[in-house]
Amino acid sequence: MHEFDLIARLKPLLPSNDFVVEGAGDDCAVLDLGDPGHHTLFKTDAIVEGIHFSRDADPGRVGHKAIARCLSDIAAMAGEPIAAVITLALPKNHDAAWCEALYAGLGKTAARHQVAIVGGETTTNPDRILVNVAMIGRVPRDRAVRRSGARAGDALFVSGELGGSIAGRHLEFEPRLAEARWLAANVDVHAMIDLSDGLAGDLPHLLAASGGLGAEIRAASVPVSRAARELARAGDLAKPALLAALTDGEDFELLFAVPPSDAVRVLDGWKAAFPETRLCCIGKTTATPGVILVGERGPRPMPRGGYEHFHGPQ
Amino acid sequence: MHEFDLIARLKPLLPSNDFVVEGAGDDCAVLDLGDPGHHTLFKTDAIVEGIHFSRDADPGRVGHKAIARCLSDIAAMAGEPIAAVITLALPKNHDAAWCEALYAGLGKTAARHQVAIVGGETTTNPDRILVNVAMIGRVPRDRAVRRSGARAGDALFVSGELGGSIAGRHLEFEPRLAEARWLAANVDVHAMIDLSDGLAGDLPHLLAASGGLGAEIRAASVPVSRAARELARAGDLAKPALLAALTDGEDFELLFAVPPSDAVRVLDGWKAAFPETRLCCIGKTTATPGVILVGERGPRPMPRGGYEHFHGPQ
Repeated sequence: MHEFDLIARLKPLLPSNDFVVEGAGDDCAVLDLGDPGHHTLFKTDAIVEGIHFSRDADPGRVGHKAIARCLSDIAAMAGEPIAAVITLALPKNHDAAWCEALYAGLGKTAARHQVAIVGGETTTNPDRILVNVAMIGRVPRDRAVRRSGARAGDALFVSGELGGSIAGRHLEFEPRLAEARWLAANVDVHAMIDLSDGLAGDLPHLLAASGGLGAEIRAASVPVSRAARELARAGDLAKPALLAALTDGEDFELLFAVPPSDAVRVLDGWKAAFPETRLCCIGKTTATPGVILVGERGPRPMPRGGYEHFHGPQ
Repeated sequence: MHEFDLIARLKPLLPSNDFVVEGAGDDCAVLDLGDPGHHTLFKTDAIVEGIHFSRDADPGRVGHKAIARCLSDIAAMAGEPIAAVITLALPKNHDAAWCEALYAGLGKTAARHQVAIVGGETTTNPDRILVNVAMIGRVPRDRAVRRSGARAGDALFVSGELGGSIAGRHLEFEPRLAEARWLAANVDVHAMIDLSDGLAGDLPHLLAASGGLGAEIRAASVPVSRAARELARAGDLAKPALLAALTDGEDFELLFAVPPSDAVRVLDGWKAAFPETRLCCIGKTTATPGVILVGERGPRPMPRGGYEHFHGPQ
């Protein structure tokens, strides 16, 4: 069974209460905890040795990745991160120096984004290391940017460059917190999601949440990363660079939808605010469901998939 | 390295910020998120197949245990639980029906305590199932009951009965939320902790947090569970019942300290409010460090240990 099918099947079993503004299904849950100015964001995420990092990876970078993934989800709601708690599940013969280096990486990235680490549990996972991060953030009341607000004809943008993160970026990416908050403050962002499962995997989530829209993506406008291009040159078994940009996971870039009338203003404002980070208009949403990739060969269906944890890199 | 040593070594690496009232080291972190009436509690906890439950355990009871452990930590601060997010790490060939039954158990216990489940992540843990629960709760401002407030001469109480939880109670215990909130509302509770690592393991945490106190525990007053007595009769290799009550893990009962002048009032009030749940005064705190067990053979040092995840039941 597919990860998303499982979550969809489980969702009706989840109890709610009056604190819940938005439950499971978006990048973060949204709660009303009584702060007159803010809603609270809540998120959990885990990385697992052999799935999301290799045993010989630098532990500081593993710690960075563990917390940066949660930070990216806070960014996707245009939120401000506040505090995190860590669960470190370790084989019994764990190396204390490795754990300290992991925490140093966690702590450095947390400090850079003004996030407190307020709890650290350890438990046993006999076969491999697992790091879970749960995070609280906040967003001005009713200003969380959801996946669900896109409308037909919206312009679609992605930050940064896509594909090939396995070459190193998956351990180094910087969550787009400042960029997302700038967007929410300056543009009418209809919908936003962070790209953890690849553009081809995550765009359908945004479209489905927004009432079953479709999209047309211009192949030539997809920002293909240098890493994806270099990996594509590795041989005749390598993924073509465009396919990698569409289907590789762990980009942790922002995908968002704005009214077409805002498109030029977004590009100009972004360029002034974040001159070192690309922003590309990759296409538009459509009333007709389905994602179409428009390239030199004419329109084609978007390649399926995107990164899935249950079928992802080992 | 010991779990608690690791956490102590890691703690200085953890960044803080102005939202933090109490960081790592108590049953929950305490945050000030701007609710004029409340502080926010934050906790994470994981259970792992083969460590905290067996593969053939009923999945509904595993789900109950996963969330009830976090609820017990909220109880230990005299808090009210609000919302939880779940990370379910599974082998690739996971059984969807097992997952649904797990979530049904999680959901039923959450609903019984008015907790919303607002997010459910799944990821791959190839060798065994791991369930992480992160929870937000709240407590009236400045009314969170810490581990750190005990004073020399305080009376020490435990709820329920101790030991032998492996016989079944570890999958069935009900977190003492109502009892803890009753205590905080009616008694001057100086310090409280939930017993996850056994009385002999957790009492020293409360005493250390309270400035390095000691304690005298009356062996005859320790409430030994029927399960511990029955397991003790299993043969000449079985743990004596008193030792089990002191050192078995996963009791999830409350241990708390009150001024000696309140002791009778606590017992009488508890009996009226919770007639079906035992409450025992097991001894007192002392200015002299160290935990002494006073029994028929005179005073002895408390047996070492208590349940540790790194050396616990397999």
